Amino acid sequence: MASSIEKASTALHLINTIQQMDHIIGNIRDRKAPVLDEADKLPFEPEVSAEGIQQRKALLESKTTKSLPYLIDGKPSGDLAALNGNVENYIGMTRVPTGVIGPLRIVGSSAQGDFYVPLATTEGALVASYHRGARACMMAGGATSICLMEGVQRSPVFKFGNIADLGLFVAWLLPQVNQLKEIVAQTSRFAKLMDIKIQIEGNHLIVTLEYHTGDAAGQNMVTICTEAVCQYIVAHCPTKPMLWFIEGNYSGDKKATALSFTNVRGKKVTAEIVLSKEIVNSVLKTTPELMAEYWRSSTVGIIQSGAIGAHGHYANGLAALFLATGQDVACVAEAATGITRMEMDQHGALYASVTLPNLIVGTVGGGTHLPTQRECLEMMGCYGTGNARKFAEICGGLVLAGELSIAAALSAGHFTQAHQKFGRKKN
Amino acid sequence: MASSIEKASTALHLINTIQQMDHIIGNIRDRKAPVLDEADKLPFEPEVSAEGIQQRKALLESKTTKSLPYLIDGKPSGDLAALNGNVENYIGMTRVPTGVIGPLRIVGSSAQGDFYVPLATTEGALVASYHRGARACMMAGGATSICLMEGVQRSPVFKFGNIADLGLFVAWLLPQVNQLKEIVAQTSRFAKLMDIKIQIEGNHLIVTLEYHTGDAAGQNMVTICTEAVCQYIVAHCPTKPMLWFIEGNYSGDKKATALSFTNVRGKKVTAEIVLSKEIVNSVLKTTPELMAEYWRSSTVGIIQSGAIGAHGHYANGLAALFLATGQDVACVAEAATGITRMEMDQHGALYASVTLPNLIVGTVGGGTHLPTQRECLEMMGCYGTGNARKFAEICGGLVLAGELSIAAALSAGHFTQAHQKFGRKKN
Amino acid sequence: MASSIEKASTALHLINTIQQMDHIIGNIRDRKAPVLDEADKLPFEPEVSAEGIQQRKALLESKTTKSLPYLIDGKPSGDLAALNGNVENYIGMTRVPTGVIGPLRIVGSSAQGDFYVPLATTEGALVASYHRGARACMMAGGATSICLMEGVQRSPVFKFGNIADLGLFVAWLLPQVNQLKEIVAQTSRFAKLMDIKIQIEGNHLIVTLEYHTGDAAGQNMVTICTEAVCQYIVAHCPTKPMLWFIEGNYSGDKKATALSFTNVRGKKVTAEIVLSKEIVNSVLKTTPELMAEYWRSSTVGIIQSGAIGAHGHYANGLAALFLATGQDVACVAEAATGITRMEMDQHGALYASVTLPNLIVGTVGGGTHLPTQRECLEMMGCYGTGNARKFAEICGGLVLAGELSIAAALSAGHFTQAHQKFGRKKN
Amino acid sequence: MASSIEKASTALHLINTIQQMDHIIGNIRDRKAPVLDEADKLPFEPEVSAEGIQQRKALLESKTTKSLPYLIDGKPSGDLAALNGNVENYIGMTRVPTGVIGPLRIVGSSAQGDFYVPLATTEGALVASYHRGARACMMAGGATSICLMEGVQRSPVFKFGNIADLGLFVAWLLPQVNQLKEIVAQTSRFAKLMDIKIQIEGNHLIVTLEYHTGDAAGQNMVTICTEAVCQYIVAHCPTKPMLWFIEGNYSGDKKATALSFTNVRGKKVTAEIVLSKEIVNSVLKTTPELMAEYWRSSTVGIIQSGAIGAHGHYANGLAALFLATGQDVACVAEAATGITRMEMDQHGALYASVTLPNLIVGTVGGGTHLPTQRECLEMMGCYGTGNARKFAEICGGLVLAGELSIAAALSAGHFTQAHQKFGRKKN
Repeated sequence: MASSIEKASTALHLINTIQQMDHIIGNIRDRKAPVLDEADKLPFEPEVSAEGIQQRKALLESKTTKSLPYLIDGKPSGDLAALNGNVENYIGMTRVPTGVIGPLRIVGSSAQGDFYVPLATTEGALVASYHRGARACMMAGGATSICLMEGVQRSPVFKFGNIADLGLFVAWLLPQVNQLKEIVAQTSRFAKLMDIKIQIEGNHLIVTLEYHTGDAAGQNMVTICTEAVCQYIVAHCPTKPMLWFIEGNYSGDKKATALSFTNVRGKKVTAEIVLSKEIVNSVLKTTPELMAEYWRSSTVGIIQSGAIGAHGHYANGLAALFLATGQDVACVAEAATGITRMEMDQHGALYASVTLPNLIVGTVGGGTHLPTQRECLEMMGCYGTGNARKFAEICGGLVLAGELSIAAALSAGHFTQAHQKFGRKKN
Repeated sequence: MASSIEKASTALHLINTIQQMDHIIGNIRDRKAPVLDEADKLPFEPEVSAEGIQQRKALLESKTTKSLPYLIDGKPSGDLAALNGNVENYIGMTRVPTGVIGPLRIVGSSAQGDFYVPLATTEGALVASYHRGARACMMAGGATSICLMEGVQRSPVFKFGNIADLGLFVAWLLPQVNQLKEIVAQTSRFAKLMDIKIQIEGNHLIVTLEYHTGDAAGQNMVTICTEAVCQYIVAHCPTKPMLWFIEGNYSGDKKATALSFTNVRGKKVTAEIVLSKEIVNSVLKTTPELMAEYWRSSTVGIIQSGAIGAHGHYANGLAALFLATGQDVACVAEAATGITRMEMDQHGALYASVTLPNLIVGTVGGGTHLPTQRECLEMMGCYGTGNARKFAEICGGLVLAGELSIAAALSAGHFTQAHQKFGRKKN
Repeated sequence: MASSIEKASTALHLINTIQQMDHIIGNIRDRKAPVLDEADKLPFEPEVSAEGIQQRKALLESKTTKSLPYLIDGKPSGDLAALNGNVENYIGMTRVPTGVIGPLRIVGSSAQGDFYVPLATTEGALVASYHRGARACMMAGGATSICLMEGVQRSPVFKFGNIADLGLFVAWLLPQVNQLKEIVAQTSRFAKLMDIKIQIEGNHLIVTLEYHTGDAAGQNMVTICTEAVCQYIVAHCPTKPMLWFIEGNYSGDKKATALSFTNVRGKKVTAEIVLSKEIVNSVLKTTPELMAEYWRSSTVGIIQSGAIGAHGHYANGLAALFLATGQDVACVAEAATGITRMEMDQHGALYASVTLPNLIVGTVGGGTHLPTQRECLEMMGCYGTGNARKFAEICGGLVLAGELSIAAALSAGHFTQAHQKFGRKKN
Repeated sequence: MASSIEKASTALHLINTIQQMDHIIGNIRDRKAPVLDEADKLPFEPEVSAEGIQQRKALLESKTTKSLPYLIDGKPSGDLAALNGNVENYIGMTRVPTGVIGPLRIVGSSAQGDFYVPLATTEGALVASYHRGARACMMAGGATSICLMEGVQRSPVFKFGNIADLGLFVAWLLPQVNQLKEIVAQTSRFAKLMDIKIQIEGNHLIVTLEYHTGDAAGQNMVTICTEAVCQYIVAHCPTKPMLWFIEGNYSGDKKATALSFTNVRGKKVTAEIVLSKEIVNSVLKTTPELMAEYWRSSTVGIIQSGAIGAHGHYANGLAALFLATGQDVACVAEAATGITRMEMDQHGALYASVTLPNLIVGTVGGGTHLPTQRECLEMMGCYGTGNARKFAEICGGLVLAGELSIAAALSAGHFTQAHQKFGRKKN
């Protein structure tokens, strides 16, 4: 039984070390409203202009000490070989308009500081809405955002002649766990087999292997490791399965599932903020009361719709950020689940939180190395190894900003107006 | 009660007119395996090469009589003003590698013919897999794909002092339906209010307005029309709500819900194919038996995972096609739900179908007019008015191709190998 | 499209006639706290005693002018033939302890007045908890409880050679609706075919027939009618299905489904109450604040558990009342879904509502005619024709009472204590 | 990580000891069709007759060497005090017709042998249907039914000022696990704390305590233990929660949830059988082909309805057996979830399995000691300590019999006929 406890102890990055935790907690408690230097401000510009682009370029380059030639100046790449492994039957580059919001201040475990967040989208009003939410968070001293756990799964299924054979197989399999971990260690430099769970249904056995995948999103990595594990199993088990498949469609890959939602898939992040009545009034143009009312009514609404979890529009921010940073955009289908909560605290302020248990993200591999994608990650100091949890915490803060802004607009009756203003072609 | 029947009669595009239906049915029944002209073939190329790009360019230009300067030649756009309404705080263009598959033959209601389908992705093996599935469909004479129904919803919520007040409001509201349709007609040239449904929970009333939105995806359009409807309602109703919000988080916007899945959101498409044992062997490298076995085991697997619907990886193909064609990529969160079915027929062939009830897509508006996105739509003859159902049917055929290919790989034990071959950087 | 509106107009019993509605609304608004005659009070007795039984017997007989010889005096039935149609391989009678709560005041559309509600259970504390909730409702002038809609479904599935054949079948079927209604009218005196809905998935067509079933729960009735309808269809349709089954496991029979939850199955009832701070304090031993807090935290809890809807323990009260009154107890699996909501109103009082969309209940047929079951229905004036909606509204009020009591106990930390006091054997 | 493996090792009763397992497997493999002694047969009687009752009485008494005076002879109980702890405000006994099916042969881990199973119901055709299914299982040598795991949960929720405080609390809590186990051991003779899991959502922490509860269903037991645990926690933790509730509506108590379905609640049982073509023809009046077809179509049907899991009518058999044996009938709401699978094997026989992960059952406590309920348990040798897993395995076999019978009737078009024959009053 110590099992889940031990697992929790190691899995909860929040409490990995008391020292680190004290540091995080210090940051969370010491948070205060910033006096923003004029130089840090990103003025909002709804229309596209060459001047605006140059102003933002100057700001971003000064803050990040990096230039952004591919993204901002449209520098061609030229290196076709760099595309190998990302695409077949290549014909060219789809180009997606990209805006920037921020600064988004994150008080997290791996992410600490002010971030300018790139969002690639064709939907008017999206960038504007997240920018507004980020501003509200900034004025409150920043959003707490913590990566709690991580794990990527593959779920091979084995089918036996009957339950008795299945039982013999399980009895053989369970003591092999160290051997299986060793096979994984030999197969991948990065993957670590963290847990094995079994699910029996008649003569079907699903074996879920859960991995840590370092800073990669990791779907390919866990496939290759699971193949190696299964080849070993099938070669050595005394009771052979009649059939086996490397994925029994149980792992939640590329789709929202109740199972992934109640566990973790990729990274689990929770983020929270307290917004004073004044910030809600001045930035979000509504009141904490109305936002809490809206949360309650809309939560009962989404329950009636039969969603997995209960939130507003996680998919908008996640799709835009995933796209800009070379994540697997199809994973929006699984990542855009979670719980948003908004309520008034005893001082009349608004408490808001978001919890995203299925953030499949990485800062190495996939499309992260491509020219504009790499620049977008570098803009947030998130390119390469050591940055995946940091990036996940930025995702949490971004989503929180978006939930605040849309709930504010809906509660105050400004939702339509925003879309009329930003989302329609004038010409 | 005639209601649902009448609605079905008008809603089912499949049977809009017997003549049209006879035509479709003739096409479906007359379908036969094609003798593909060498000139129509798109040879598969896993690695990126300048020669390959030029070959595909030549093929696409010859088939579509359009050049693709933005996509293939990387021609810069220059027209910043064209981005207004798509993005704010603009800084540049995210560039996403794009491949092409096909020809994908569709025998549909609005889509008829052979299509070369652009897919924007950073995930290796994705284009290869859909290309293989398309080839199998081609050899079987093409996939049937039918857009069955359409509808986009907004769901304002009204809160009353008690159920009695709510009842008086409903009694007033229901006879206003023609008035509300008129308001919609005056608000938008394209939106048509098709249906109103009410959902009562205590003193909460959700009023779901369902629209046809022409060839636009339509989320903004239905928001603006619903705002107009609500303003009229609130101004004229004798029993006033205490509060109302234009969206009660019930419409399923940007998230998978059981409600949208059992109804329609956007367009509902079903597609099917029968693949002979020979095609399954030669193209998909497995057998109908194994694919049917895989379907059964994996369907029981996904049921155990608590998904909405049961399918393999709709999100992969949809995200790549949405991205290439200027759709709202965040809608992958709702579109990637549905049902895949595979079974052996009495002749030992494989029957396979996919059903996608939540395809939020458009061929006007959104990002469809942007340079590379427009070219990608034009490549399939899907740019502009009159093409949304055709595009939805291509989505259906694409998704069917992808389900066939992944199920084949998983059933035969080739899944890992494909990802090792295409999905990893060699350098 | 008028369809859903028209359907709503006829389906919503709440607004069937403005006159009736005015009457209901008058009752709702005029509600006030009662001055309970001593003779109407049902004193609470946790332990079982012969005196207590006689006191309750006297009260129930005086209020209902009926004696209860089978239930209270244990009179044997003797009439074996009366069991035909209820059971096979009969060996005897299972006996279940039955308590009574009340008076439960209902201000409804079909139910108006004070009810003593019998609950058959073996779970200590259950009767006590519902009794307490009923007392709180009584002191607030009674619970509003309205039967909003009704409908019982059967969902035959037809499988075709391909989508084209399916389309021809649908095109033939839809104009047959009046014929099908006529067949139903000839097959059953009570069943009325109200609506037909179709659901297409590949070459599968599910045809959902929705009926009104008078005062019977109606599952057998709709099966027999649907058989007749299907026999007609299969005999006359020009395009024959390859296979068909009278139930495609889509109707939600005997199980909780998202589909039934978002529509109606059996009867849909919503009930509400406003409890002053004083009532919450004196009867429920907690505060509106704590109950609203509990509701919010526990609703987020149940969302995380992946339930259908969000409530506390509907199954407890429903199982006990269904059992006492000869309902199909297996239907608890589908009936125990819905939404409970609790919040503070602007005056600091507690607003609470429950909504149960899937109440499969009847006052004729099934086990309603059996000796003790009939007495239990008569105790509430609910035996026989004309009473099903009334009974459903009593279910709504009962469930509301139970939700209030458990939420109060949990919010105040008294939940364990209640179960220790009532739910454990002392001997 | 060893955690889940270790947990699985101890939790999987199937493989507790290799010796026991060999024994079970021997039983499963040695199974053969029985030559039933005439004296063991229970002839089917659709109508109720005094002679039939006496015949069944004689058979049951001879097989079980127990008389059944309360159930069969209607002997009054007289002992009112025995009802204390089961009901309050007692007024009498609800009487429910009870039939018997069997023999149902179970080849299990704890259940081994032929069982006559009592079913209390008012629904005609129910007993007949399960009896038929049991006969088919008998002819195939009996159904394998294995209790795989067990666990009953309580899920208190703790709310903190912010995530930092929550983190400090978790860091303190996790090392307390042995202390918490000790508290449980001191609070209850039967309950064992097996696992603790935490779920974080913003400033909400749900702590799920999972227990073994001996042979009791255990809901009260786990409530009382969790209260003791929480009182200790709240008294000793350095970082105090702002609020806490003993149940955050996350444990799945009295409702179907995706979470309970993917884990275990109560007992998890899987049962399977292989029926030859001859048995399917002669007893079930259909063919393996048609049953496999029905399974596929109806599984796609239930997926479309948005159920939790996929099965036919578990609730029917479970409600009837729960009722007869003094189980908590409200738990049908959670127990009636799971997965039924039917397919043809390579020899043309029918393979069928059921998996029920949420069987909340007990053979001590609750209503098990009441007169008729105790007799019904004794009829199966299931009364008192040491019998809960055995009873759960009988539940599994019963449910399998019921799924076979209904699927056979639906596949062959006999479903309506059965209900017309048994389920309607003739007089």
